[in-house]
Amino acid sequence: MGEFDLIARYFRRPVRRAALGVGDDCALLRVSPGCQLAVSSDMLVSGRHFLPDADPMALGHKALAVNLSDLAACGAQPLAFTLALALPDADPHWLAPFSRGLLALAQQHDCELVGGDTTQGPLNICITVFGEVPATSASSQALLRSGARPGDDLYVSGTLGDARLALEALRGQWTLPPALLATVAARLHQPTPRVALGLALRGVASAAIDVSDGLLGDLGHVLDASGVGASILADGLVTLMACRGDTLDAVVPRQHQQACVLAGGDDYELAFTAAANRRDAVAAAAAASATPVRRIGRIGSTPGMRVIDARGDTVTGDWQSFDHFG
Amino acid sequence: MGEFDLIARYFRRPVRRAALGVGDDCALLRVSPGCQLAVSSDMLVSGRHFLPDADPMALGHKALAVNLSDLAACGAQPLAFTLALALPDADPHWLAPFSRGLLALAQQHDCELVGGDTTQGPLNICITVFGEVPATSASSQALLRSGARPGDDLYVSGTLGDARLALEALRGQWTLPPALLATVAARLHQPTPRVALGLALRGVASAAIDVSDGLLGDLGHVLDASGVGASILADGLVTLMACRGDTLDAVVPRQHQQACVLAGGDDYELAFTAAANRRDAVAAAAAASATPVRRIGRIGSTPGMRVIDARGDTVTGDWQSFDHFG
Repeated sequence: MGEFDLIARYFRRPVRRAALGVGDDCALLRVSPGCQLAVSSDMLVSGRHFLPDADPMALGHKALAVNLSDLAACGAQPLAFTLALALPDADPHWLAPFSRGLLALAQQHDCELVGGDTTQGPLNICITVFGEVPATSASSQALLRSGARPGDDLYVSGTLGDARLALEALRGQWTLPPALLATVAARLHQPTPRVALGLALRGVASAAIDVSDGLLGDLGHVLDASGVGASILADGLVTLMACRGDTLDAVVPRQHQQACVLAGGDDYELAFTAAANRRDAVAAAAAASATPVRRIGRIGSTPGMRVIDARGDTVTGDWQSFDHFG
Repeated sequence: MGEFDLIARYFRRPVRRAALGVGDDCALLRVSPGCQLAVSSDMLVSGRHFLPDADPMALGHKALAVNLSDLAACGAQPLAFTLALALPDADPHWLAPFSRGLLALAQQHDCELVGGDTTQGPLNICITVFGEVPATSASSQALLRSGARPGDDLYVSGTLGDARLALEALRGQWTLPPALLATVAARLHQPTPRVALGLALRGVASAAIDVSDGLLGDLGHVLDASGVGASILADGLVTLMACRGDTLDAVVPRQHQQACVLAGGDDYELAFTAAANRRDAVAAAAAASATPVRRIGRIGSTPGMRVIDARGDTVTGDWQSFDHFG
């Protein structure tokens, strides 16, 4: 099958919102008046970001989800995306479910596939996503990493650590009971981008980031950009996992659970800060977007990050952020 | 070197036009009032689009050039781009010249690097480029593939066929004298995106495309999209090559030269159509953009493409468009 047949068959859909979609040299997009364009690119490489035998439907979902997660972290409304795809061969048994998973999530967020590229090569999925955020020439409603202030509360959405636990189970590090494995594997393979929460947090959160490389590492970018520090309460951290509890405790040590939460990566939750007097507004944003949100710490003026116990003493551990060239 | 150090060192530049550049979850861009956004993605894979030992500076240039060429074909003014890069390792001896070549061309076109992604993996370069085109809600000034009409003239810019000749010489198919090889290799490794011509052709050309996969194949997309056919004059085709003449004739048969021109690929010239009464306007656009333009044929109402001689008889050949999954 030729490249063009392949595009037409699996990825071309009637244009709805774009002025011009797949099939010309460029796609043409309208950005709403009074809005800025928010843009993000993520590249997923076989063997690095997913296992070579990954289910293609889940992979289609995930490839877009990780990009939508960046829009969520900016409080941007999804608009459109491009897909560049390198494939070893044009296998319909892979392409059909991949495009199904991809386009189902796209439809859910009204985010239109408008263009891209396909080529032969080692499996590589590169998506660039476009969203819009209200802005004037003087200011933008986008959530940035740089807005955290001493005294702000620190929050995370949803659950953390499950994806890493799943990865390690699949690599044979732990043996998890089937029901538990299914729970964490779903978090690894089909993350939920927190787009609705990001939108609800505009004007509420002072800073935000999506947790892709691990909470500590990603939070570190917020602290660096904002010129502040943070303390995180160790107690209760392990209850941030979707698969918490006795069954898990029986097979994975608490210390390791904590490491998964703090530095696991692949969570695609939002970590964000808000002024302490905005707790009601944060709760309202969580409710409006039907997204669980948990307060886990506080921003301080001393640079650096400390994990502390209930008495304020520092808890030590060898947590380490996942770095793509680490 | 960590991923973040690497980005900072080689790719981060002060933001000039974007509202927010590299270093947050999303880049933020302003699109000028009264403009649409034009978007295109191209993915370059080692061994497929460039030789594994390709000069990294030329490769940085080319990776952006092929994307700017898509903006040129739409008549869009370059604005910004994202770069997603998979690298086997973070080698400064590769990254430094790559970023130099990339950013030099970016600067030349005032096209700002605003974000992206880096990861470990088989060498893969994916750029998504953004431009803008004046548009109202009712119509756009973008050059599309679909506007060619019977009676229109058919043009190409610059030179065609040299890149393919260079590729075949590098593969050992032909032995070219050194001076000739240098000429064609420059066309292969450092193509010139015809951005200024694309801008000058707004309101003049009826349809346009950039020649990346070969003239016949790419022109075929214009014909399909416009529901028309074309005839191309065989005489003089070989003079479209930069390296034409006796020296070339001595080592490469004319028939093969013609095939390079018609189906070579990697040219990144513009093929476009314009009404026959706009010849002066086309000449003015060529002059204003300092870009050579040649009239090579005519659009007709009968679907399909014919290469004809001066008497109007069909010339046959086994020209074949380069298809990435062909």
